[in-house]
Amino acid sequence: MRVELVTVGTELLLGQIVDTNAATLAARLTQVGLDCYYISTVGDNWTRLAEVLAQALGRSDVVIASGGLGPTQDDVTREVAAAVLGLPLEERPELWEQIQAYFRQTGREAPAANRKQAYLPRGAEAIPNPVGTAPGIWVEKNGKILICVPGVPREMERMLDETILPRLAKLAPQPLYSRVLRFTGLGESHLEAALEDLIRAQGRVTVAPYASAGEVKLRLSVRAASEEEAQALLDPVEQAILDRVGRYCFSRSNEPLEVVVGRLLLERGFTLGVAESCTGGLIGHRVTSVPGSSAYFLGSLVTYANSAKEQILGVPPEVLKRYGAVSRETAAAMARGVRERLGADCGLAVTGIAGPGGATPTKPVGLVYVAAAVGDRLVVEEHRFRGDRASVKDRSAQAALDLLRRTLAGAEGIGSGGVERTGGQV
Amino acid sequence: MRVELVTVGTELLLGQIVDTNAATLAARLTQVGLDCYYISTVGDNWTRLAEVLAQALGRSDVVIASGGLGPTQDDVTREVAAAVLGLPLEERPELWEQIQAYFRQTGREAPAANRKQAYLPRGAEAIPNPVGTAPGIWVEKNGKILICVPGVPREMERMLDETILPRLAKLAPQPLYSRVLRFTGLGESHLEAALEDLIRAQGRVTVAPYASAGEVKLRLSVRAASEEEAQALLDPVEQAILDRVGRYCFSRSNEPLEVVVGRLLLERGFTLGVAESCTGGLIGHRVTSVPGSSAYFLGSLVTYANSAKEQILGVPPEVLKRYGAVSRETAAAMARGVRERLGADCGLAVTGIAGPGGATPTKPVGLVYVAAAVGDRLVVEEHRFRGDRASVKDRSAQAALDLLRRTLAGAEGIGSGGVERTGGQV
Repeated sequence: MRVELVTVGTELLLGQIVDTNAATLAARLTQVGLDCYYISTVGDNWTRLAEVLAQALGRSDVVIASGGLGPTQDDVTREVAAAVLGLPLEERPELWEQIQAYFRQTGREAPAANRKQAYLPRGAEAIPNPVGTAPGIWVEKNGKILICVPGVPREMERMLDETILPRLAKLAPQPLYSRVLRFTGLGESHLEAALEDLIRAQGRVTVAPYASAGEVKLRLSVRAASEEEAQALLDPVEQAILDRVGRYCFSRSNEPLEVVVGRLLLERGFTLGVAESCTGGLIGHRVTSVPGSSAYFLGSLVTYANSAKEQILGVPPEVLKRYGAVSRETAAAMARGVRERLGADCGLAVTGIAGPGGATPTKPVGLVYVAAAVGDRLVVEEHRFRGDRASVKDRSAQAALDLLRRTLAGAEGIGSGGVERTGGQV
Repeated sequence: MRVELVTVGTELLLGQIVDTNAATLAARLTQVGLDCYYISTVGDNWTRLAEVLAQALGRSDVVIASGGLGPTQDDVTREVAAAVLGLPLEERPELWEQIQAYFRQTGREAPAANRKQAYLPRGAEAIPNPVGTAPGIWVEKNGKILICVPGVPREMERMLDETILPRLAKLAPQPLYSRVLRFTGLGESHLEAALEDLIRAQGRVTVAPYASAGEVKLRLSVRAASEEEAQALLDPVEQAILDRVGRYCFSRSNEPLEVVVGRLLLERGFTLGVAESCTGGLIGHRVTSVPGSSAYFLGSLVTYANSAKEQILGVPPEVLKRYGAVSRETAAAMARGVRERLGADCGLAVTGIAGPGGATPTKPVGLVYVAAAVGDRLVVEEHRFRGDRASVKDRSAQAALDLLRRTLAGAEGIGSGGVERTGGQV
């Protein structure tokens, strides 16, 4: 069964935004075993959108169109989809009621413009949108399925995961089962070199690496008749991988590092206090992205100025003066300080130079110290990251969370492979 | 003159990588005044690539295909391009010499597989590739231009900037000039309703809104012979927009809110301390994403636990007990507290319920208070946001930064339109 994607939006043709929706849709379709052979992008233009949708419905079994369901005059996907299928648009009173209720919750009245979002082609089903006003559209005609989703990634992804993929997966041939292992502390090329033969083999189980900021994902996939058969095929490949690079693996079920760290804290009944400098709050932001994190997260003291490091965290002025704010000693004092000030079981700290300014002859941009104080252990690590300000912040937060993970798991001595590391007990 | 883009690569159809090349190409074509009406993505597959290239050459004047020029058997763009144009491929000895020289520079011998990169369709020109082995291809036939570039962004961009754009720009009509205004505090549909006649007019200056989390961008575009002419045409339209909704506009030059706030602080010589609860550090993260923010940002005290609000910020226990952590009174005490504790000129605070847990009968998920203490003024606002945890965090951070912006600009009394707001002096 062939699926085809159509992403709609003049801003895509102007290059104002990158088409992440196409990648998200394609990746998730692949995961459930559906093939996508074409992706087309077209503007908010009736004639050209109609032409592209008609072509897609002619050559593929399922067409997913993303974008153009908004309330403005620009948004014509609903109208064009109905026209291409030769179906009249009809108002669904219950959808207009839902849209009005959505606005009422935020104390506003639904603008008249949003009323058109309550219209669907005759015979279509609405796809629930739990995080926005525009419902998606699922309509079948002449053996073809046309699905329309909003262009807002958050709304599109909810519809995809909750409605579209579960339904499409049932139409797939042998479904594709995947398992995603996540690694940090070594680069993509190092991981690839360590697993070259497994990646190249490409037998029934395929192994593919994907790099992102501060981590590498490894996706193991196999087509199988059942979940049980898939697991039996995936297990030995996973084991072979973990035998070689298991110490860098922080999740075997595609969880973000902050989720893994949160579970470790919960299991041990520990609370966490964080002290941040160069990450500016990013660690706290990541930790609190996990629902229920208030059970273990007490707070993060972002001490950007030296005066704040002294007054808020109690870093001794002589430590700052002698070693500098970006030093092993300051990182250690920050971790100890935040643990004491917040009365937490664990203290986690980071200090470094995110750039582009702030470097000195001995302290380059990208020099970062992370420290974890857990029980009677205090571990500090030095990193030297490359990249721009955003990248150094991302990698620093990742390194700090991973240090906490390894310290909680009792494995803080593990080397990091891809980065220079001279850490150890202080 | 119409330009069309074709991005080639099975990894794009699998969602393994995001198609940044399409956005880069589209943005730069727009900058030199060329229109792009279609972008198509297809795998490394002879039949489908031939079909897509033939269609593109049929409906557009210039086709730029990116990807598939590498040395492996997968890479078929060169061969398919020649076939679609009905031109034989011919080896160019000087290109093979260049490829061999490229490898010699790194102490290697050119693999035999790379020899196919020295072949071009008859009559084509090679586009120099200063940073890789595969030359690009520029070939004209029957009044159409087909351009092939490598998929490696670095190589593609060099060819684009050094050869392709300068040549295409000479073929362009008048270039397109754009200006982006950014708004917060009112929704896309409200903005559009206020500007309906201007958006609908679509005269020489076009006005188009784009929504993202907590803000709306308005793009004004015009084709003109010169920068000066463009500005003269854009100015009155911008003024008409600002006359109606100027109080929601935080940037007239496409700057993020944290950059605008940073500049206001610098101009006034003020320092900033932040107290965060439900945003978990996101405000600090955004403020410190701006290079040089250490000149005004002292820190952010993320007090997730009530005990931290008391001990770190000095929020009186009786305030927490009587009004609760999510209240106007606690927000005010947090803003005052962080200003005092960090010795800052401005205090900014946020407290709310990000969900999914934590709601009570009187305090729903999405209830958020933001407070700003600047000089002798203390302003608190109440918001009720919809959406999931990530969305509530995003919108809360945006609302807090915007309150600070308005307070610094001396306009804190301005209503927000799109959100319920009951703020005022406390």
